[in-house]
Amino acid sequence: MAGNTFGKVFRITTWGESHGRGVGVIVDGCPPRIPLDEKIIQQDLDRRRPGVGPTSTARKERDRIKILSGTLNGLTTGAPIAMMVENRDVKSSAYNEIKDLYRPGHADFTYQKKYGIRDWRGGGRASARETVGRVAAGAVARKVLSMKSISVIAYTLELGGVRVSSIDLAEVDKNPFRAPDRSAAKEMGKQVSKIKKAGDSIGGIVEVIALGVPPGLGEPVFDKLDAELAKALMSIGAVKGVEIGAGFEAARSLGSQNNDPISTDGFLSNNAGGILGGISNGEPIMARAAVKPIPSIEIEQLTITTDNKPAQISVKGRHDVSAIPRINAVCEAMVCLALADFHLRQKAIKDF
Amino acid sequence: MAGNTFGKVFRITTWGESHGRGVGVIVDGCPPRIPLDEKIIQQDLDRRRPGVGPTSTARKERDRIKILSGTLNGLTTGAPIAMMVENRDVKSSAYNEIKDLYRPGHADFTYQKKYGIRDWRGGGRASARETVGRVAAGAVARKVLSMKSISVIAYTLELGGVRVSSIDLAEVDKNPFRAPDRSAAKEMGKQVSKIKKAGDSIGGIVEVIALGVPPGLGEPVFDKLDAELAKALMSIGAVKGVEIGAGFEAARSLGSQNNDPISTDGFLSNNAGGILGGISNGEPIMARAAVKPIPSIEIEQLTITTDNKPAQISVKGRHDVSAIPRINAVCEAMVCLALADFHLRQKAIKDF
Amino acid sequence: MAGNTFGKVFRITTWGESHGRGVGVIVDGCPPRIPLDEKIIQQDLDRRRPGVGPTSTARKERDRIKILSGTLNGLTTGAPIAMMVENRDVKSSAYNEIKDLYRPGHADFTYQKKYGIRDWRGGGRASARETVGRVAAGAVARKVLSMKSISVIAYTLELGGVRVSSIDLAEVDKNPFRAPDRSAAKEMGKQVSKIKKAGDSIGGIVEVIALGVPPGLGEPVFDKLDAELAKALMSIGAVKGVEIGAGFEAARSLGSQNNDPISTDGFLSNNAGGILGGISNGEPIMARAAVKPIPSIEIEQLTITTDNKPAQISVKGRHDVSAIPRINAVCEAMVCLALADFHLRQKAIKDF
Amino acid sequence: MAGNTFGKVFRITTWGESHGRGVGVIVDGCPPRIPLDEKIIQQDLDRRRPGVGPTSTARKERDRIKILSGTLNGLTTGAPIAMMVENRDVKSSAYNEIKDLYRPGHADFTYQKKYGIRDWRGGGRASARETVGRVAAGAVARKVLSMKSISVIAYTLELGGVRVSSIDLAEVDKNPFRAPDRSAAKEMGKQVSKIKKAGDSIGGIVEVIALGVPPGLGEPVFDKLDAELAKALMSIGAVKGVEIGAGFEAARSLGSQNNDPISTDGFLSNNAGGILGGISNGEPIMARAAVKPIPSIEIEQLTITTDNKPAQISVKGRHDVSAIPRINAVCEAMVCLALADFHLRQKAIKDF
Repeated sequence: MAGNTFGKVFRITTWGESHGRGVGVIVDGCPPRIPLDEKIIQQDLDRRRPGVGPTSTARKERDRIKILSGTLNGLTTGAPIAMMVENRDVKSSAYNEIKDLYRPGHADFTYQKKYGIRDWRGGGRASARETVGRVAAGAVARKVLSMKSISVIAYTLELGGVRVSSIDLAEVDKNPFRAPDRSAAKEMGKQVSKIKKAGDSIGGIVEVIALGVPPGLGEPVFDKLDAELAKALMSIGAVKGVEIGAGFEAARSLGSQNNDPISTDGFLSNNAGGILGGISNGEPIMARAAVKPIPSIEIEQLTITTDNKPAQISVKGRHDVSAIPRINAVCEAMVCLALADFHLRQKAIKDF
Repeated sequence: MAGNTFGKVFRITTWGESHGRGVGVIVDGCPPRIPLDEKIIQQDLDRRRPGVGPTSTARKERDRIKILSGTLNGLTTGAPIAMMVENRDVKSSAYNEIKDLYRPGHADFTYQKKYGIRDWRGGGRASARETVGRVAAGAVARKVLSMKSISVIAYTLELGGVRVSSIDLAEVDKNPFRAPDRSAAKEMGKQVSKIKKAGDSIGGIVEVIALGVPPGLGEPVFDKLDAELAKALMSIGAVKGVEIGAGFEAARSLGSQNNDPISTDGFLSNNAGGILGGISNGEPIMARAAVKPIPSIEIEQLTITTDNKPAQISVKGRHDVSAIPRINAVCEAMVCLALADFHLRQKAIKDF
Repeated sequence: MAGNTFGKVFRITTWGESHGRGVGVIVDGCPPRIPLDEKIIQQDLDRRRPGVGPTSTARKERDRIKILSGTLNGLTTGAPIAMMVENRDVKSSAYNEIKDLYRPGHADFTYQKKYGIRDWRGGGRASARETVGRVAAGAVARKVLSMKSISVIAYTLELGGVRVSSIDLAEVDKNPFRAPDRSAAKEMGKQVSKIKKAGDSIGGIVEVIALGVPPGLGEPVFDKLDAELAKALMSIGAVKGVEIGAGFEAARSLGSQNNDPISTDGFLSNNAGGILGGISNGEPIMARAAVKPIPSIEIEQLTITTDNKPAQISVKGRHDVSAIPRINAVCEAMVCLALADFHLRQKAIKDF
Repeated sequence: MAGNTFGKVFRITTWGESHGRGVGVIVDGCPPRIPLDEKIIQQDLDRRRPGVGPTSTARKERDRIKILSGTLNGLTTGAPIAMMVENRDVKSSAYNEIKDLYRPGHADFTYQKKYGIRDWRGGGRASARETVGRVAAGAVARKVLSMKSISVIAYTLELGGVRVSSIDLAEVDKNPFRAPDRSAAKEMGKQVSKIKKAGDSIGGIVEVIALGVPPGLGEPVFDKLDAELAKALMSIGAVKGVEIGAGFEAARSLGSQNNDPISTDGFLSNNAGGILGGISNGEPIMARAAVKPIPSIEIEQLTITTDNKPAQISVKGRHDVSAIPRINAVCEAMVCLALADFHLRQKAIKDF
């Protein structure tokens, strides 16, 4: 109800603020006897860590995950899995001077209106630091899915206007932008440097693929697999658009172009992005997320103070130039969480 | 859990198949003492009715709504509001010949895989006829919102490749395509006739605006207002992409372009689409939905039989050329439902 | 949220008022391919029908159930099962004279306070007629359970102070009070006649047993099987107390008496009522519900008018002397619903 | 779904095992701007602490609560409130010898059957230590309720067969059994010493009263206030029976005795326990819980090993003689949680 919970059977609840004591998550509903330890979680967490890529902030969190409950001798027990990362490198003083200003593009204004109180220290609950809990929980979901041979990978389709021209999954982990196209990655690097120098920020597009998803996942009508994926991705702070399969291209297509013909060996194309009527059809699930530019920029912007006086703001602090590539890990986590949940939901009614 | 419910406080559950006894909905959680009668519901329902526009099917349902419970002397009582429309003009025989074929682009294949059984009569539960319940419930939500001076309108931004070049809301109800631009509407007409003649179908883009939404609606993290709107719209069968505010354009923007500056009179632009950090900021809510072409086309397509033999299919029956404009009413309904729900969720914690 | 929904995976939502157009229920989450038709439902419904026993009202509803959706050729499809009974024998005029009085022991006062409006016709939503939907849905749950060899039976343990002295399940359907003890049933008959003549009403105790429940149903901590059964039974209007296994007797026992010793053939006693730590242990589930006397009595009572003036009331209308035995069918339904739900919940995580 | 969450708007999720790293809870949905600090929580927690009463275990946990998130300068912010207590005095070795035995009356057997794995260290998730999270969350709920002048108190009505003969709330905190009757408390003391010496354990009855509850809390049909209280109390491990108001006595009453007459000054009796039709009527809420004897006893009992061989068990460890009085704090917490939740649920639809 208060927005901090995702999933129905495989269900997570996150907590924590940017500059509070820590951030964490409870994973409830994970099947028992799944191998799980802190190393598995840490691996995914390291991919969203600050300070690892060319677009990223100078904040250096060690971000060591602790599993507080729910496992015994390296296996899940069916009990809730509580996990937590302590906040260490916290400099709230840096935020002191913008404490009474609403930062454009941020949630400062809306949180104040909603709650009548606002944790201004580093964005509080609205900070991207909140995604630590998502990624930790996503790692559990990924482990669950891996036992059913389902895998999820996200990569950068576009950054700062540079679009990849080919998809080579083997390339993704080899360049700092997680682009599946080496030469595009180089162009992205040039573009990002230029924008950084200008004190500005930039957006991009992430594509997520899920392989090995069997037919039958997803529920009809409101909880369609594509609907939940759209919610899952759009719930990431910086995402402003979501496409499944052909996405907005489908809006310009004829039925005879957009329908995927069926053969005895499967579908002959995948404009549907692996989903028909909200239910997986056995083809790869394909989703894309439009990522807006990081709102914290050094360039001066018009704003108001919390007591409604005109002001100007230049956000210095330690901020990424783009949410990409770190947001890739979050996109993967959200897709893993949605799929793990649907997998268990389908188990509840299957083979009665 | 089984996908037929939407909302948390203002909560609806729909039921019914294309060729069953009827379709309906329960609205639970509607505040008491709201004026409500069948006329209010019927008005919205008439806008999604088959056989009213140039893109539409020949199926002529009278679609008379009956309120079965939850009101007394024209006021809601706080009890669940059950509503129902009987199915009358049902010709299941028309579907007899495609009973053993999976129609490309439809949910036939995935429902069979998910449930091991499939109601083949007119698409069963996966038929767009399911949206009758959504629109009826949406009319209740619209009434609730109207009492808080919130209004929601959807219009056609693009159809068959024809994009409107101006937005005149007064024009929307005056042309059969619900385009806010009269000359674009004419072009759409020509395009649709051509496609109809070819036995094909076509997609388009719907834009939905909510006016009068106060700041503070939406919940942080997972239940962001934009995340729920994305789910709400993507849960409509034909929708394959959703944008909020600048949407995919934001992915190509600089922070200095995309951030909406704030003045003492409000925001100076609306790239955010009225939502910051998942919470409404007082500006108009702006969302767009990419609508794929209707999958039922006369043009022959490759497919397989239910016992996995290659086949060809030409779907004759009575089918729309485009889900637009009828889908506009459904998009409005979903946005109304999401906003009514968030309005009540916010009431629960506000002014404690 | 608004209280009309029960269950998580096997989930029902009821609607309808005593004197509205009808009463009904949606069953969502029923597994596909379960044999189901109106006859199966009607059978259970007939057992809660008015006018069938010696304690019962003169209201003669035919109560013919209609399945409106969710089945195809006598099998469930996985789609929501909507069911409805029309209200026919409705005499709202009989309630006209008590329209402005709060009936003691009824929900008139509290509904008015909660909603600021009240459907006074026959108790509106608070009428026991609401249980039609529960029993219809319970019949679906019972069918689901029967396929796993689980059965549920309720009988009268006590009525009007007369307690059964032996339990013979074969006797239950043979006497009008559903007592498992023929001679106790006779005593109950005498007691009830006496009370009826006095214009008064009387309470009793119902015991419900579930046989064939495998170990492992129920969830830890808050959703314990006994906790959900307590909620399920206490949600029936007339129930004011619930016991599991030894119940209040356990409060006076020593640990050495109350613990059920375990042997290689199972438990050697069943003080636990088949539930340990909230999870079924393979023994019969045993629950009891304390049923208060029907509040509608002819004997004059003190009350107030809706505008807060002192008044006296004698409720004439057509009212049962006791909710027993009709409430037995409702108790069975609620236990069936809880067990079916837990069965599916357990399936979601089992044998991963 | 997995049972570790309670409440809908004011919603808690607990985690942790008896001998894991700690136990904790997330409170989600707490209204913003409520004064809250660790002292407020600690106060309630100290009342359920081990080692404080004559019936209690020798385990000495300091049980220092830490608030990890959700507050700023002593006020709630609307963000989730995560709280945690570290486990310090943990001696798992004491459980080593009963690791392969199912303790009668405990959840060992059922957890093994449900999950195929069992955290045997101190009962794992099924340990009463789990209630730390409930009590911490209950303290937040109590604070919320106090701002609406609602208070909740539990006391011991019966222990080891000794029933109080008068109710003096001022006495409750003055004797170690939380009995509202000093002389009964003395009798309880004698009874408990005798049972302790015998290596046995004993049950009792707790009564909970809520004062200041306005009319209108609770939802109709399934989520009746009494139904949720029954679930709330029955979800406590040791509870096997629940009564509201007259409870099982109502089952033996006539309508003319059990109905509470209404006067212009309120109800003239309170057999309903403050609840009519599932909704509070403004009178004190009255509930009772039957508490079974602690299953861990020194007296030898028959049981089986995890590989199904007959065995005998004498549970030594550090165990209470009775869950009373410590369970009083848990009963209060559960009633506070239920009432806080219903309070917010009612706010959502009230004064629209």
